[in-house]
Amino acid sequence: MRKVYLMTPGPTPIPPEVLLTQAEPMVHHRTPQYTAIFVDVVEGLKRIFLTGNDVITLAASGTGGMEAAVANCFSPGERVLVCAGGKFGERFGEICKAYSIQAEFYQYDWDRAADPAEIKKRLTADPGIKGVFLTHSETSTGVVNDVQAVGKVVAETPAILVVDSISGAGALEMRTDDWLVDVLVAGSQKALMTPPGLAAVAVSPKAWELIEQSTSPRYYFDLMRARKKYADKSPQTPFTPAISLVKGMLAAIKLIEAEGLERVWERHRRMALSTRAAVRAMGLELYARDLERAYAVTAVKAPASIDGAEIVRVLNRKHGVIVAGGQGDLKGKIFRIGHVGYYDIHDLLVAIGALEMTLAELGHTFERGTGVAALERTYMEFG
Amino acid sequence: MRKVYLMTPGPTPIPPEVLLTQAEPMVHHRTPQYTAIFVDVVEGLKRIFLTGNDVITLAASGTGGMEAAVANCFSPGERVLVCAGGKFGERFGEICKAYSIQAEFYQYDWDRAADPAEIKKRLTADPGIKGVFLTHSETSTGVVNDVQAVGKVVAETPAILVVDSISGAGALEMRTDDWLVDVLVAGSQKALMTPPGLAAVAVSPKAWELIEQSTSPRYYFDLMRARKKYADKSPQTPFTPAISLVKGMLAAIKLIEAEGLERVWERHRRMALSTRAAVRAMGLELYARDLERAYAVTAVKAPASIDGAEIVRVLNRKHGVIVAGGQGDLKGKIFRIGHVGYYDIHDLLVAIGALEMTLAELGHTFERGTGVAALERTYMEFG
Repeated sequence: MRKVYLMTPGPTPIPPEVLLTQAEPMVHHRTPQYTAIFVDVVEGLKRIFLTGNDVITLAASGTGGMEAAVANCFSPGERVLVCAGGKFGERFGEICKAYSIQAEFYQYDWDRAADPAEIKKRLTADPGIKGVFLTHSETSTGVVNDVQAVGKVVAETPAILVVDSISGAGALEMRTDDWLVDVLVAGSQKALMTPPGLAAVAVSPKAWELIEQSTSPRYYFDLMRARKKYADKSPQTPFTPAISLVKGMLAAIKLIEAEGLERVWERHRRMALSTRAAVRAMGLELYARDLERAYAVTAVKAPASIDGAEIVRVLNRKHGVIVAGGQGDLKGKIFRIGHVGYYDIHDLLVAIGALEMTLAELGHTFERGTGVAALERTYMEFG
Repeated sequence: MRKVYLMTPGPTPIPPEVLLTQAEPMVHHRTPQYTAIFVDVVEGLKRIFLTGNDVITLAASGTGGMEAAVANCFSPGERVLVCAGGKFGERFGEICKAYSIQAEFYQYDWDRAADPAEIKKRLTADPGIKGVFLTHSETSTGVVNDVQAVGKVVAETPAILVVDSISGAGALEMRTDDWLVDVLVAGSQKALMTPPGLAAVAVSPKAWELIEQSTSPRYYFDLMRARKKYADKSPQTPFTPAISLVKGMLAAIKLIEAEGLERVWERHRRMALSTRAAVRAMGLELYARDLERAYAVTAVKAPASIDGAEIVRVLNRKHGVIVAGGQGDLKGKIFRIGHVGYYDIHDLLVAIGALEMTLAELGHTFERGTGVAALERTYMEFG
């Protein structure tokens, strides 16, 4: 028997209420039944993103949403600032390059959050910058950026702020309108507890102005075309939507709203602080140095004598606990425990218990049980 | 009680074997378990498409696959020939326009198939044409083109042949390699009996040569990036795949292969000929004048005195039978019964029986029972 415990920062476990919708018979997307579901999803996402802006859904995974932001908002030759402090920040830069948009990179240490003052400095130095790309929750490092502070800085300029919140919105605090986010990109498979393949993009009036001027080619990801179709008497998408995923997302939205958005945020904070306490109690170090708001993923440094990839392997093979390794330069150096989405303390009891056994097997010296004890203790302090 | 019978040309009903996979717990896409599923899907699609060419999967609906073909194969300013005999043929032209690719249109009557001799004439007249776009099964009209004949014509030129087979391959005869198709675009939600949101593109060596030269921007749909990732020791996709849909497609491929590909084609022919006999027996006319190979969708002209949209509405409201209306200029003039994918004679008994009752209610004069009788008779002639 092999029971599997998915503890990666995406895709994340799907609640049974969502899974069961996936097995329902197919409905046609040009029917009143589907239209009602679709409208409920769009309006639900607006409530979760805390925005009155348009929300466009796309049948694509998160990267498709990121590309939609790039290809719709900017034109070839225009200059943008990409805050790159991890793999997903860098991806924005790669997409800009593909579209001949000149990306200036603000490279910051991967274990740090972006510094809003540095962004301000660069925007002041180059008033021609049309947009700033920021990753809300950087899944590759666990760091969560201060979107609110960056939003203030960018709002004072003609540039728009594009935020990848694929492992954020729905789990971590994200106040799209209050924080002055112009384009928010979300994906189904992380905070939103739905299988991968559905992206959502929230677009502010300031961003629509750029979109209306952009000459970059796009068709499948054309946001203006989607906005127009949503304004139909019977709102729809220009192309066949990912019907089953849209239905799943509606079930997930209902779960989030039944729990209450702020309570969902607080649960994630509680899970993150408990996990941190546990790994520290086992004598391990956290990778991120900026830990404020870092409640989606806990990135842990492997002990010097142990290959991080080996920890990931033993957790998987012996215990069925699937965590993620490091990406890029961090390969073998860290492992990442995801707790964004459908997680409670009992999932973490499994993960930390399995981690204790794994570390013991690999020769790490620590007092057995200290990880789980710290987990429980921190968890109960919230009580 | 309302039982629903989905009889549209896509999305089509999902077999229970596929639906149940959709409710399985999420697996992570960077694991050996998922890799095995993914490789089985790609290799299975090659067998269904009858190709030894590379098959790339994309988390997008069919139009995303069409855009991938355009954006990867051609560069701004290049000339292509778009065979446009229906809504989906025209879509290729729209995508080319979005990418500044000069599309010459070969407009043919929507109730006819494209004429290979005309394509040859145009390719001879303009040897600079880099590609020909053809719709295999035109879902908006029911017409199915002679891909084999067009393939022969195009293969004699430097141009590549791009075929949208979204409602074809997997249900209708499609011999990608024998018929000299350079780029085949397929989607999950029609012939392949899987929920929408997954596209597949088969690419010939002749097409790869163009792809390697193309300067059109693309990232999410970048086929070279996908080919490289598939060649990894552990094959994967560059971005998070639509995991649940990939699993569903594997189940669908197993169903197709258990039945046998040629028997699947024959079943579709049998369903189409039976449906045609039924609607003709009721005194209705078929829309398509070229009926050879047109086995995916039966487009029927509404009687002169009855609005086609009204037939669609009554079938839906009174009988739970969901068929499609006409698109574009055909709005209100035709209705379309889909029988591509998971259909047998009993589905058509329901559809034709409901159509008899609907037509009687709307005042069409015919002898009740003749439709169903003709359906049964033709079906049994195949015996």
